[in-house]
Amino acid sequence: MEDILVVYKEKPDLTDPILIEGLPGVGNVGKLAAEHLVDQLKAEKFVDIYSKYFPPQVLVDDSGIVKLVNNEMYYVKRDGAKHDMIVLIGDYQGLTPDGQYELADRMLKMAQELGVKMIFTLGGYGLGKLVEKPRVLGAVSHEDLVPKMKELGVTFSKGEPGSGIVGASGLLLGLGKVYGMRSVCLMGETSGYFVDPKAAQAVLEVLSKVLEVELDFSDLEDKAEQIDLLTSKLKDTEPQQEPRKEDLGYIG
Amino acid sequence: MEDILVVYKEKPDLTDPILIEGLPGVGNVGKLAAEHLVDQLKAEKFVDIYSKYFPPQVLVDDSGIVKLVNNEMYYVKRDGAKHDMIVLIGDYQGLTPDGQYELADRMLKMAQELGVKMIFTLGGYGLGKLVEKPRVLGAVSHEDLVPKMKELGVTFSKGEPGSGIVGASGLLLGLGKVYGMRSVCLMGETSGYFVDPKAAQAVLEVLSKVLEVELDFSDLEDKAEQIDLLTSKLKDTEPQQEPRKEDLGYIG
Amino acid sequence: MEDILVVYKEKPDLTDPILIEGLPGVGNVGKLAAEHLVDQLKAEKFVDIYSKYFPPQVLVDDSGIVKLVNNEMYYVKRDGAKHDMIVLIGDYQGLTPDGQYELADRMLKMAQELGVKMIFTLGGYGLGKLVEKPRVLGAVSHEDLVPKMKELGVTFSKGEPGSGIVGASGLLLGLGKVYGMRSVCLMGETSGYFVDPKAAQAVLEVLSKVLEVELDFSDLEDKAEQIDLLTSKLKDTEPQQEPRKEDLGYIG
Amino acid sequence: MEDILVVYKEKPDLTDPILIEGLPGVGNVGKLAAEHLVDQLKAEKFVDIYSKYFPPQVLVDDSGIVKLVNNEMYYVKRDGAKHDMIVLIGDYQGLTPDGQYELADRMLKMAQELGVKMIFTLGGYGLGKLVEKPRVLGAVSHEDLVPKMKELGVTFSKGEPGSGIVGASGLLLGLGKVYGMRSVCLMGETSGYFVDPKAAQAVLEVLSKVLEVELDFSDLEDKAEQIDLLTSKLKDTEPQQEPRKEDLGYIG
Repeated sequence: MEDILVVYKEKPDLTDPILIEGLPGVGNVGKLAAEHLVDQLKAEKFVDIYSKYFPPQVLVDDSGIVKLVNNEMYYVKRDGAKHDMIVLIGDYQGLTPDGQYELADRMLKMAQELGVKMIFTLGGYGLGKLVEKPRVLGAVSHEDLVPKMKELGVTFSKGEPGSGIVGASGLLLGLGKVYGMRSVCLMGETSGYFVDPKAAQAVLEVLSKVLEVELDFSDLEDKAEQIDLLTSKLKDTEPQQEPRKEDLGYIG
Repeated sequence: MEDILVVYKEKPDLTDPILIEGLPGVGNVGKLAAEHLVDQLKAEKFVDIYSKYFPPQVLVDDSGIVKLVNNEMYYVKRDGAKHDMIVLIGDYQGLTPDGQYELADRMLKMAQELGVKMIFTLGGYGLGKLVEKPRVLGAVSHEDLVPKMKELGVTFSKGEPGSGIVGASGLLLGLGKVYGMRSVCLMGETSGYFVDPKAAQAVLEVLSKVLEVELDFSDLEDKAEQIDLLTSKLKDTEPQQEPRKEDLGYIG
Repeated sequence: MEDILVVYKEKPDLTDPILIEGLPGVGNVGKLAAEHLVDQLKAEKFVDIYSKYFPPQVLVDDSGIVKLVNNEMYYVKRDGAKHDMIVLIGDYQGLTPDGQYELADRMLKMAQELGVKMIFTLGGYGLGKLVEKPRVLGAVSHEDLVPKMKELGVTFSKGEPGSGIVGASGLLLGLGKVYGMRSVCLMGETSGYFVDPKAAQAVLEVLSKVLEVELDFSDLEDKAEQIDLLTSKLKDTEPQQEPRKEDLGYIG
Repeated sequence: MEDILVVYKEKPDLTDPILIEGLPGVGNVGKLAAEHLVDQLKAEKFVDIYSKYFPPQVLVDDSGIVKLVNNEMYYVKRDGAKHDMIVLIGDYQGLTPDGQYELADRMLKMAQELGVKMIFTLGGYGLGKLVEKPRVLGAVSHEDLVPKMKELGVTFSKGEPGSGIVGASGLLLGLGKVYGMRSVCLMGETSGYFVDPKAAQAVLEVLSKVLEVELDFSDLEDKAEQIDLLTSKLKDTEPQQEPRKEDLGYIG
């Protein structure tokens, strides 16, 4: 079979479109954000991407109907706006390093064919501890994008992320740069322990300024509350530690 | 070498054939069921499928004769019936995700060439606990297949299987759907701890209604008894737990 | 690069040659046996086989000269004998299942080109315990080879080896059979804990009858003695267990 | 995408160039040495090598600019010298054995195209213990290189390195030899626990004699001091072992 099987429903005619990627990853921040964008902007699916680099697996929906795991692209046409949008979401990223490269390369070529010159990739930046108010960290392909992003509240912090960016969010930037495309990665801080709607919202708040769209976040806020409830319940069921005597000098 | 080496003994001329897959998996339910079908219907082998996606291994039979591990297809011609059958069995599934995809793709193309439009894949649904009377869960490619399967006793249960279907039984459905084929996966509930002839029989009882064939299950029932014997022996050798006092209120 | 890089020093003109394979494996039985054959028969190397399926590694000899790890074929021309010989030895087997298949396929095609119709593969049969007098187990491609091998002292034992034969020794038989070649695998019983010259000798004693050659085994016997010495020393350095009091009732 | 994507900035015209490789490895000895060479000789980058055999990752510099992980070649033109130089450095080696082979093969073909006939690969030889004064071990493609290297202080020691040389430093020698190229591997002894500038300097001291260049080592010496400081601090923070009574017989 073809290593990557691309099945178009239509090839949309778009105005200087921006590609926005949100695939599964740390805290599923990118996936949550991109799916929220698809919902809010009533984006239209135009292509299914299947591949032997994904797990050999079907998902089963609530009616018992199967769907081969895939990645999908949606478009948003916006009358009068400077930029239409393409949103890339999916069930999985490529399973192997070379699969990751092959998929990113293909996505970029599809995007170029549709006229994409600018890419935003969305992801989480795992801190390994609970985050009260997540910052949004940035990384860019070209230097002049740094001040523009700083203006919108993005943090550029020396040495963060120290280990670089792994997976689709990194490759679309890095390989896209080799192909002459401009790009920004927006990373919402997250514990990395749970799916993190709060970090997704932080990322989208930046992105909505870039894209000049208004987004309703009540869905994500509901999800964040549910997660908060869950995590606080988990805390309650943890065995309570009795204060140790030596910590309580004033009792004597 | 060719990635997949297909050696035909003959290319049968079949009437609107249905493909039935039963490869090794959870509780070997699908394999047991499909092999029982081959035995009972005196199906004729017509093709050997070797591949570098299988283990690099030969099996040795009781006379000392080797056989390279493979997958095999059998056919059943049925005078006057609406559908002939093709049964796919084998020693192994593909070892890697991409091998799984390549093999499923090839099987589907071979099936299409033989006129297959409908596929049944057989498997086990592992519960991680002993099952007294296994249900048969279903998943389908197209919505109209759900009520038809329900009529034959198949259970469609929201959220089951929650993690989707992995391997050949899933891929033949999912990839087949992309290629325009209709399909059903029948999953017999099983502990997953042992090969499970009882679950295989449950699956075949549904399938025999679909195919309008009568099957003798005494072989599978014998095997099930042997397994039951084995598992009950295992229980006996487990250290006996003394009844705990608090369980014995009536003694107090 | 080519997946398998074959560098011929010469293409020998051989009379109905028999291929003998001995690559690293359980107890290195096959490798020891085939290398001993090369030494004793003063076989001539005629081809180097390099491959990306081997480890990315060079070996360094005692003078500091590197050699890329490889497989090699040697030939033995025998005036007046019915069969010349080709001996396949090497540093490694393929690292991955598909690499194993690709390599075995290539070796078989090289062998066919040189006129090989019959293959002997040599290996160890790991028992997981020390073996006093190793039997030589057999597995064959065609039924009529069983009685011939039994006559030469080879054991064919129902259910042994239960898990089949994995790796080059298995694949050359199984894939060779698909390609119409006849073959025998000779497996010397071994603990599998050490390299096992004794098992190698047992295998060669059978093979020398097949090939009608006389072999001097003093080298292998020396090695076997060294191994015996080593293993008995290991036993001596094990902490001696003092007899426990409760075992010594007669002292009471 | 192409498995290996080579992006030339220029194709330099070089005089009988020598290729020097220093990629990440044990103690990062080769990488440190080759990067030091690039700095000291103000070498000019002329090509970027990207590949799906590297991790799917971008690095982010202190300004927030991404760079797809890669290997790079630099050249040094030297007026009047017999040999110009090409230095190969990079973020990673290939992740898989076959990736290692594909990359080494490609590097060698690129080098041959630029006229390279002689290769030096730089690496560490891990001892698993702290090394006061690291020796430089050698391995070569052709016997006549041994005395030449011995003259320059390189040690050739029977049985070292016992397990051969794994990775790019080994493959460039071994595969290069198959392609008719001459080569030397210089291995600086290192504990392998830390990046080891001292071992890198030892390797460069030999190489500077071969290349007839003068190198300033103050940078490496500074780094070595920092490492020394760090390791001695680590020692100090280890829990101090109280002398056990039985060790102090003279107190008794």
